[in-house]
Amino acid sequence: MSLPSHVRLVEVGPRDGLQNEAQPISVADKVRLVDALSAAGLSYIEVGSFVSPKWVPQMAGSAEVFAQIQRKPGVTYAALAPNLRGFEDAVAAGVKEVAVFAAASEAFSQRNINCSISESLERFAPIMAAARQQGISVRGYVSCVLGCPYEGDIAPEQVAAVARELYAMGCYEVSLGDTIGTGTAGATRRLFEVVGAQVPRDKLAGHFHDTYGQAIANIYASLLEGINVFDSSIAGLGGCPYAKGASGNVATEDVVYLLDGLGIHTGIDLQALIGAGRQISQVVGRPSGSRVAKACNAV
Amino acid sequence: MSLPSHVRLVEVGPRDGLQNEAQPISVADKVRLVDALSAAGLSYIEVGSFVSPKWVPQMAGSAEVFAQIQRKPGVTYAALAPNLRGFEDAVAAGVKEVAVFAAASEAFSQRNINCSISESLERFAPIMAAARQQGISVRGYVSCVLGCPYEGDIAPEQVAAVARELYAMGCYEVSLGDTIGTGTAGATRRLFEVVGAQVPRDKLAGHFHDTYGQAIANIYASLLEGINVFDSSIAGLGGCPYAKGASGNVATEDVVYLLDGLGIHTGIDLQALIGAGRQISQVVGRPSGSRVAKACNAV
Repeated sequence: MSLPSHVRLVEVGPRDGLQNEAQPISVADKVRLVDALSAAGLSYIEVGSFVSPKWVPQMAGSAEVFAQIQRKPGVTYAALAPNLRGFEDAVAAGVKEVAVFAAASEAFSQRNINCSISESLERFAPIMAAARQQGISVRGYVSCVLGCPYEGDIAPEQVAAVARELYAMGCYEVSLGDTIGTGTAGATRRLFEVVGAQVPRDKLAGHFHDTYGQAIANIYASLLEGINVFDSSIAGLGGCPYAKGASGNVATEDVVYLLDGLGIHTGIDLQALIGAGRQISQVVGRPSGSRVAKACNAV
Repeated sequence: MSLPSHVRLVEVGPRDGLQNEAQPISVADKVRLVDALSAAGLSYIEVGSFVSPKWVPQMAGSAEVFAQIQRKPGVTYAALAPNLRGFEDAVAAGVKEVAVFAAASEAFSQRNINCSISESLERFAPIMAAARQQGISVRGYVSCVLGCPYEGDIAPEQVAAVARELYAMGCYEVSLGDTIGTGTAGATRRLFEVVGAQVPRDKLAGHFHDTYGQAIANIYASLLEGINVFDSSIAGLGGCPYAKGASGNVATEDVVYLLDGLGIHTGIDLQALIGAGRQISQVVGRPSGSRVAKACNAV
């Protein structure tokens, strides 16, 4: 067993987390969160999303957030851009890195973004072309990699096909998301074995949801497969829309605790991170979804 | 990587879980819980504890619980017996298997059971002798194996010394408990490597707390080390007394979900288990500590 010596965490709380909040969060609170996260040592923060406020009202004001954050050197501040219009808005707001997303499940793609998987990939072509021209980096997401709320099990080969396509189109990294959190450690390893045969492993990331309490084990399983980039969400922000009351994104605090315990370098200060999580948990008015935060705040 | 083909779960909810409840649970509710657990397929249930009700009032009535449960063939119904008096009371109540416990930390042993580790082991000698004579099996627990609330880190060699002693005294199995839940996957593997050199691995069990969200990952790490017996608690019953509001014992539902996902046989019906957990969660008046139960009950 040889584990990676360092891990990069992609903090998705301000975007993937807060976009699921029933009550919109103010620009000021979002800015405070992003700055607290960079101060805690996170080197990659997904700050917002440039989508129609008609579809995702929680992400209105992303441009203002980008304008007001204190940009710390060495930190990547990224935004989701589902289409060319969103990409252009993001660039106009000074964004240097965007993310695009596709699904590994046809049914999920249809219901979530209203088109087939291949149509969604076609939509990215003009984004990729514009990004190349303007020197913008693009990260790709694939959702439903270990299960789909409509189709059930998803073959790793299907995930590999979508991931390979995103990589071939120019995504410098592809994040594989267990959107409904049903995956377990063995399936996670098989996933990275199969996808890793199509896309270099150092271009893959893991994105786990803790809905069934498996996220930390899945991250450990991924580390054993040589994966060293993971998405996570401060305080576990972002409930899973398919299981009311259940947890969604794995909490960044819990991931950092695991990595600290394994002696893997992240550059993140766990206590500062817990402080950032405490602050945003107060804003959203819910207890933290992080077990580490709960334990540490309780002592 | 070769994982065990089957795992035995030791359900500690009725004892280790309920003994931490502020409000005592009635004998009838305990009986209903134990019967629901055996009906769900659990083959080993720690039903109660024969200790002075002065120290642990929650465990008063253990003899009545033993008298009223429906004994299912093939199921072991065990009790904790901290001293010879407790052992005799347990045997009088028809108990065929008892458990004794020691700590891997001197400070914890002193504060928790008011004697040194070696004194605690000496106290077990008459229990072991009486058990041998009467054909009673004895299981040993070692607490604080991955950290102590007073001493901090605990050397695996220290755990190995206590585990070896319990095994040499006649405990047929020794369960290693991460009492405060601070352990992570790498430390778990090292623990079983070191202890496994002193006690056969098939005589060791893992007992993990989910206080820091690491229990499922630690169980996966243990499986990779060949361990195939784990303690767990229905609905995650049993808060950790050192971190108010934080979770304690890993939830049986979450462990079974992991094992089902890995294709490891347990003989347990997850849906029946979730039903048992729902029932006892209503009795204690708290949401389940199991993420699987939360997700499945929310759908």
